[in-house]
Amino acid sequence: SIDGQRLWDSLMAMAEIGPSPNGGSHRLALTDEDAAGRHLLIEWGQALGLTLRVDRVGNMFLRRAGKRDDLDPIGVGSHLDTQPKGGRFDGVLGVLAGLEALRTLDDHGVVTQRPLELVVWTNEEGSRFAPAMVASGTYAGVFSVGSTLARRDRDGVSLGEALAATGFNGEMAVGEPRLAGFLELHIEQGPVLEENHEAIGVVTGVQGMRWFDVTLRGQSSHAGPTPMRYRRDALAAAARCIDRLQAHALADPSGDTKVTCGTLEIDAASRNVVPGEVRLSVDLRHIDEGELDALEARFEDELAAAGEAFGVEAKSERIWASPVVSFDAGCVDAVEGAAKARGIAYRRMLSGAGHDAVYVSRVAPTAMVFIPCRDGISHNEAEYSSPEQCALGAQVLCDALIELAGR
Amino acid sequence: SIDGQRLWDSLMAMAEIGPSPNGGSHRLALTDEDAAGRHLLIEWGQALGLTLRVDRVGNMFLRRAGKRDDLDPIGVGSHLDTQPKGGRFDGVLGVLAGLEALRTLDDHGVVTQRPLELVVWTNEEGSRFAPAMVASGTYAGVFSVGSTLARRDRDGVSLGEALAATGFNGEMAVGEPRLAGFLELHIEQGPVLEENHEAIGVVTGVQGMRWFDVTLRGQSSHAGPTPMRYRRDALAAAARCIDRLQAHALADPSGDTKVTCGTLEIDAASRNVVPGEVRLSVDLRHIDEGELDALEARFEDELAAAGEAFGVEAKSERIWASPVVSFDAGCVDAVEGAAKARGIAYRRMLSGAGHDAVYVSRVAPTAMVFIPCRDGISHNEAEYSSPEQCALGAQVLCDALIELAGR
Ligand SMILES: NC(=O)NCCC(=O)O
Ligand SMILES: NC(=O)NCCC(=O)O
Repeated sequence: SIDGQRLWDSLMAMAEIGPSPNGGSHRLALTDEDAAGRHLLIEWGQALGLTLRVDRVGNMFLRRAGKRDDLDPIGVGSHLDTQPKGGRFDGVLGVLAGLEALRTLDDHGVVTQRPLELVVWTNEEGSRFAPAMVASGTYAGVFSVGSTLARRDRDGVSLGEALAATGFNGEMAVGEPRLAGFLELHIEQGPVLEENHEAIGVVTGVQGMRWFDVTLRGQSSHAGPTPMRYRRDALAAAARCIDRLQAHALADPSGDTKVTCGTLEIDAASRNVVPGEVRLSVDLRHIDEGELDALEARFEDELAAAGEAFGVEAKSERIWASPVVSFDAGCVDAVEGAAKARGIAYRRMLSGAGHDAVYVSRVAPTAMVFIPCRDGISHNEAEYSSPEQCALGAQVLCDALIELAGR
Repeated sequence: SIDGQRLWDSLMAMAEIGPSPNGGSHRLALTDEDAAGRHLLIEWGQALGLTLRVDRVGNMFLRRAGKRDDLDPIGVGSHLDTQPKGGRFDGVLGVLAGLEALRTLDDHGVVTQRPLELVVWTNEEGSRFAPAMVASGTYAGVFSVGSTLARRDRDGVSLGEALAATGFNGEMAVGEPRLAGFLELHIEQGPVLEENHEAIGVVTGVQGMRWFDVTLRGQSSHAGPTPMRYRRDALAAAARCIDRLQAHALADPSGDTKVTCGTLEIDAASRNVVPGEVRLSVDLRHIDEGELDALEARFEDELAAAGEAFGVEAKSERIWASPVVSFDAGCVDAVEGAAKARGIAYRRMLSGAGHDAVYVSRVAPTAMVFIPCRDGISHNEAEYSSPEQCALGAQVLCDALIELAGR
């Protein structure tokens, strides 16, 4: 059995790195805080005798030898970066539960057939560098190493520069090591498990998601003498588009249509200036690829209509599309079997959030384990799962890991 | 007659201080650029033998002696600060046309009965420090010196600190010198004169305006797994409110209802985070005080409804109210008389923008002169009035100034 208290202590120790004002975490990818978090993990890994390798996009692999080191390893892990005002569990739990599994194997002197790799993927959140999961996507060959290193944050710093600045510009080729399987534990980040009083989600796949950069170009003018009919108010057009998209998503009785505008910036904003230019991000999600196409078409229509209504030129660029994913049946069974064997209430479910497991699943058999989080809240400083909930998740993860790696 | 070329050359020389990328000006109040603009004016004033005094809120008075220095002076001027991406004429024209009038008097060896004061008011735009016209308002006794010095910009720098940093923290008591009259030339910043092919606006008053700081507090959550119905999206609420206010203003057939949301900021914004907190500025204007009350009530209703619709706590604070203003009949007549005597097409009109003349009119007889600007565009780098239009305005200003000051 895993040690729930040790896992909790590790979670709380990590949360002391980049603490945010209201009890959350602030460790944007490849900042000093993120680097400090990685160093703490490396220290813990070294105490366990794990061997560290870092690839060219900063993904970290901490290896535990197996009985058969000629076989491809099984990976377990997640990410350590957070949102600007993120929680203490998103990502971190997946990494530290993986560590807890390896510590538990050590406690009991168990060596698995296959080697194990504790993995930390770079820049999962997509908050500093878009898109999300960019480094696991590079590992899976979806993005080229060059394009990933060239991605820039809002201040113009490239991911490559941030890697060099933090010292996590590793030498291992991206795509190494090949994994024979991958497991990721994560908080659900939604309300389903909590509402249904279930302790484990056996994740069978992930909904599709698409990101857009929208630019609205009107004309700045004076808030006082400019007649309403003369204006070309870029914010008014953005507001119309946001309001219509919200109404559309809220009207879907299935609840499967999801629309989020998370960032909005007005160029040279001033109280008494009609906004001339607005940049807006749009995040569309659906569990069905065809419905996601329809949602994208609807979004483009609403954007065009809003632009026309306010005399504003509206352009959108799709900067990311992550298709609907189904995980590997064998890995899903291993997770389900572990939950069943321990008599834990679980459900098979889809993930609403993207995870590194999405991209890893393209190159290795993959599945995920979810645990409930309070009020379904995530990407929020108040994010919380109890020590007991975390421990149950780590136990299922550990059991499934041993199942995949072989005793 | 004034020298139109000399006026134009001065305007273009001032525009070289803090030039903005697309041919406009960037001289936010009490920045290094604003200070450089003030120093250039002081140089020009010294060449004319004007005497400089600066009051405690940085208002500059450049005095030209009269025949009767025991009489209160007549003031002429405007402001030199601009919007973040402002034009080359807003404010600057009023100051430099005043300078051109004094230069013209010098050319002809004319000394007026009353002394003249060329005035530069601090922070008229309200873009760096809210509200607008804060230093002329302090001169007029509407704001206390202490409260004005304590006002802070977005970076937390106080107006008093910015005065000290630029060296414009003068020693003269605010309210000094008392003015026997004040004239301000300005571009219209709207389309009326241009559309009616008139060269001069005889400004009889200014519409009322109110500024609000709005805070919308929902709950940040994850863009993926959070069902639409569970969200408390602060941006969705803001968008609803903006859209409804736009519709309300656009539906007013008189065109007198004006609503502008010029700034909007999302706390800890991230593409895949449902916005938890949004700050929004609202600018409401109307030519009728009762209608402005009704507009404010409507705004509060729409804000409350939007908050309720999205489960978001919505609060607004009225941070500024500038009532509807009527200028002094005598001063208005002096402007109208000057336009008539020169045979210039003019109209009597209200101003849609606030100006320092609004506050000065509380303590001295005041009027304004408008000239057309291309496409009615202002608070925009493309702002433009032709050399001929500027010259006609300066001529009427000069004639009215002599009329008020006495030959
Ligand atoms: N788990 C998580 O927060 N991932 C970020 C990618 C997404 O936006 O779904
Ligand atoms: N003239 C001008 O731009 N004044 C700023 C104050 C206002 O917002 O009307």
